[in-house]
Amino acid sequence: MENFEFYSPTCFVFGKDTENQAGKYVKRFNGSKVLIHYGGGSAVRSGLLDRIKKSLDGEGISYVELGGVKPNPRSGLVYEGIDICKKQRVDFVLAVGGGSVIDSAKAIAAGALYDGDFWDYYQGKWIEEALSVGTVLTIAAAGSEGSGDSVVTKEEGMFKRDAHGDVIRPKFSILNPALTQTLPPYQTAAGITDIMAHLYERYLTNTEEVEVTDRLIEGLLLTMIHEGPRVIADPDNYQARANIMWAGTMAHNNSVGVGRSQDWNSHTIEHELSALYDCAHGAGLAVTMPAVFTYQLSHNVMRFAQIAVRVWGCQMDFANPEATAKAGIEAFRNFLISIGMPKNFEELGAKEEDIPKLVDILCHGDGRKGSISGFITLNEDDCTKIYKMMI
Amino acid sequence: MENFEFYSPTCFVFGKDTENQAGKYVKRFNGSKVLIHYGGGSAVRSGLLDRIKKSLDGEGISYVELGGVKPNPRSGLVYEGIDICKKQRVDFVLAVGGGSVIDSAKAIAAGALYDGDFWDYYQGKWIEEALSVGTVLTIAAAGSEGSGDSVVTKEEGMFKRDAHGDVIRPKFSILNPALTQTLPPYQTAAGITDIMAHLYERYLTNTEEVEVTDRLIEGLLLTMIHEGPRVIADPDNYQARANIMWAGTMAHNNSVGVGRSQDWNSHTIEHELSALYDCAHGAGLAVTMPAVFTYQLSHNVMRFAQIAVRVWGCQMDFANPEATAKAGIEAFRNFLISIGMPKNFEELGAKEEDIPKLVDILCHGDGRKGSISGFITLNEDDCTKIYKMMI
Repeated sequence: MENFEFYSPTCFVFGKDTENQAGKYVKRFNGSKVLIHYGGGSAVRSGLLDRIKKSLDGEGISYVELGGVKPNPRSGLVYEGIDICKKQRVDFVLAVGGGSVIDSAKAIAAGALYDGDFWDYYQGKWIEEALSVGTVLTIAAAGSEGSGDSVVTKEEGMFKRDAHGDVIRPKFSILNPALTQTLPPYQTAAGITDIMAHLYERYLTNTEEVEVTDRLIEGLLLTMIHEGPRVIADPDNYQARANIMWAGTMAHNNSVGVGRSQDWNSHTIEHELSALYDCAHGAGLAVTMPAVFTYQLSHNVMRFAQIAVRVWGCQMDFANPEATAKAGIEAFRNFLISIGMPKNFEELGAKEEDIPKLVDILCHGDGRKGSISGFITLNEDDCTKIYKMMI
Repeated sequence: MENFEFYSPTCFVFGKDTENQAGKYVKRFNGSKVLIHYGGGSAVRSGLLDRIKKSLDGEGISYVELGGVKPNPRSGLVYEGIDICKKQRVDFVLAVGGGSVIDSAKAIAAGALYDGDFWDYYQGKWIEEALSVGTVLTIAAAGSEGSGDSVVTKEEGMFKRDAHGDVIRPKFSILNPALTQTLPPYQTAAGITDIMAHLYERYLTNTEEVEVTDRLIEGLLLTMIHEGPRVIADPDNYQARANIMWAGTMAHNNSVGVGRSQDWNSHTIEHELSALYDCAHGAGLAVTMPAVFTYQLSHNVMRFAQIAVRVWGCQMDFANPEATAKAGIEAFRNFLISIGMPKNFEELGAKEEDIPKLVDILCHGDGRKGSISGFITLNEDDCTKIYKMMI
């Protein structure tokens, strides 16, 4: 295990009706003027926004609003949010939505206290200062409710990039599984896929002797395998939703990923797909991961065999561990198909002829030097082959 | 899953040589006058205390010292520490040691800002205010480095009781697995047992559909089963020590115990043993748990069968789940014996003739009303039977 610092000071408020405590928690974490940031109309139509406003009113906290966050959140709205925060002296950004809304809120919170262009943070500058962020989560997926990360797409060039800093970890995150019951099955499945990707990306490590984090990741994946199909079959299953929601948070606050190198090649390769086609990130991952894993398999056959046996219940083929490793990837692919995720470019809405463009942005866009690096380093040729495996 | 709040704002600093950053982290969390609190001479002899002082000196932080914490920390030293803090205007209590030192430090930190008798907190009053606490951990066991709990023994009557509050969660905890390499095997094994007890006590729940926390607990137990014997066989195995250390922290910061009822009958029953005989808490638990589990088995056979199959690799006996459940408890008992833990009263140094006294203090001491309550409620008769099973 490598040395590490783990700091997750987010207060998680979990369970039924907890959104009605939003005001109480904003107050507890010293917010007095809030920007409520949200996405489309569902937060309005469902009455969620009204309940949150009522809760803020109840604590005498004033607020302004900024809706309209789209999946794969864009820089344009972030600039708008920063402007509002500066002009209206906002001191707390409350994200009501999923990962896109939360990531956009984090970008606004960081940009509001920064004199330069907030995009600097998405080009590698560590975020040292930001307004306080809180969240009311409406989809179990991105894990942004417990992370110090944010992903935003720059409209000029459609670069999808990430930024990091402890100060953008939410002060509190309200997790009410019931709020996720109204999600369409496809979005639910995309969320499940994203959570499993966060676990796989941490599992694929080059650090040896990390049994504790291996076992924790396996436990969370087993949870997803048990609860995923239950919630797809019965969207109103509160308990299955609850188990998935806490698994999603634990999958990405990094308590199960400490002290080990991590992969993230699948995320990096997928980001170009959702940036170009605006597909759901999870759906893109469903197509990307089996290809990336298969391509990376020979780098550490035993690691893939281990997850096949421990998580997917494959029998170890001691004469041919590679067969076991492949069986694990196949089991994962079939699981993703079974919950309704796309299996190839066609089902995702991606096009073979775009591959050169995808590879070019992936390997050269926004400062990259011809390759990406995770579990293994992948150059343009590797990435081309991987995208072709997805056709 | 039940509603819950989970808040673990401790900054964990993990890995080799991290104790040299003590000063940096005291400063980061606004400490200026420190009470260094420690136990016996090993922290002095090993040079650990000197390294920490050097680190504080390096940041210009002044300090006073209070050593002498004994296992099962006593109220007497706590009163002394409170007095020092008040007189010397200490604002940060730095515990250098294991669970006993940390628990004593938490009691001092709480008592220093309280006008009444600190023991009020150990009789059920929630701790709302305390000096900041930091830790440099020297044994993986109690999990106190990441918890909001403290256990102290009142010398008058030898009552061993616990207190709780978010404010006594350490601001930071420095976890260097190398510091645990010099521990005698018995203490190492007692620590392993304590960690596994924290996991079992959370596993034995009356809350249904808690797959995510079940799976996380199982993962941590599997880690202990893998790494425990390795570290007993080779005390210098840094990697095994590291896996155990992080498992110990995760076992008790409650991220794997949220949203579910928990047991704690074994801890409650053991506390009287270590209070009376001053045995290692883990050693007492090794004798207590198999008896308590066997006594509680009929309350939920399937839960014990599940842990037997998933954690201990027992084959499920579908015609006789109780046989599987018992096989799991037996496997656990044999594991504890294999790492050098005592298996009965005699090996622990406890006496059959003390049972009436133990039961009396357990069920009536310090305000209890004739029974204790966890996975099931146990009255005097139950507790007597359980202690007798340990003979």
